Amino acid sequence: MAEFKHLVLVKFKDDVVVEDVLKGMEKLVSEMDTVKSFVWGQDIESMEMLRQGFTHAFLMTFSSKDDFTAFANHPNHVEFSTTFFDCDRKAILLDFPAITVKPAAA
Amino acid sequence: MAEFKHLVLVKFKDDVVVEDVLKGMEKLVSEMDTVKSFVWGQDIESMEMLRQGFTHAFLMTFSSKDDFTAFANHPNHVEFSTTFFDCDRKAILLDFPAITVKPAAA
Repeated sequence: MAEFKHLVLVKFKDDVVVEDVLKGMEKLVSEMDTVKSFVWGQDIESMEMLRQGFTHAFLMTFSSKDDFTAFANHPNHVEFSTTFFDCDRKAILLDFPAITVKPAAA
Repeated sequence: MAEFKHLVLVKFKDDVVVEDVLKGMEKLVSEMDTVKSFVWGQDIESMEMLRQGFTHAFLMTFSSKDDFTAFANHPNHVEFSTTFFDCDRKAILLDFPAITVKPAAA
């Protein structure tokens, strides 16, 4: 079965302490076994025109869509999401089965 | 050294044959050893409000920022990018060093 990805792009509000948001996200992920892997990054170098104001990308990987659904509906995630979306000026979410063209293994 | 990610979110123009774009992208990636891994996905299920019209996510991983820069400046990529951006109605790019909170290994 294809892995399932949960991708979130964000531009945070100016007064948000991003480190606190990250801590909350790390806590959430560490508590949830359904989250298979989690990476994030901050882009502050690319052309603003290409980034369109977004600065952070968060990418969670699940073993299946069912695992993602269980995560998404879990009270811990629902609570965190509410807090998270108070912090963003804008956000885009994409959830999709991952099609691997080139696998990560070297 | 942190892996480096190249993330592209796209909404294609209505008359674009997405399969052709994908073939071009697969060809590009297969030719370029600097691309460590490549996954993509299509989200046509989430709420439009959350996706904001974007339908496809493309995620390439590089061993280093230098590898990404070499890829980005390679003539094959430059040529493909020109074609690619003729095909999209809107796109967002984020390039960032990946911070791994939970590694992929089970």
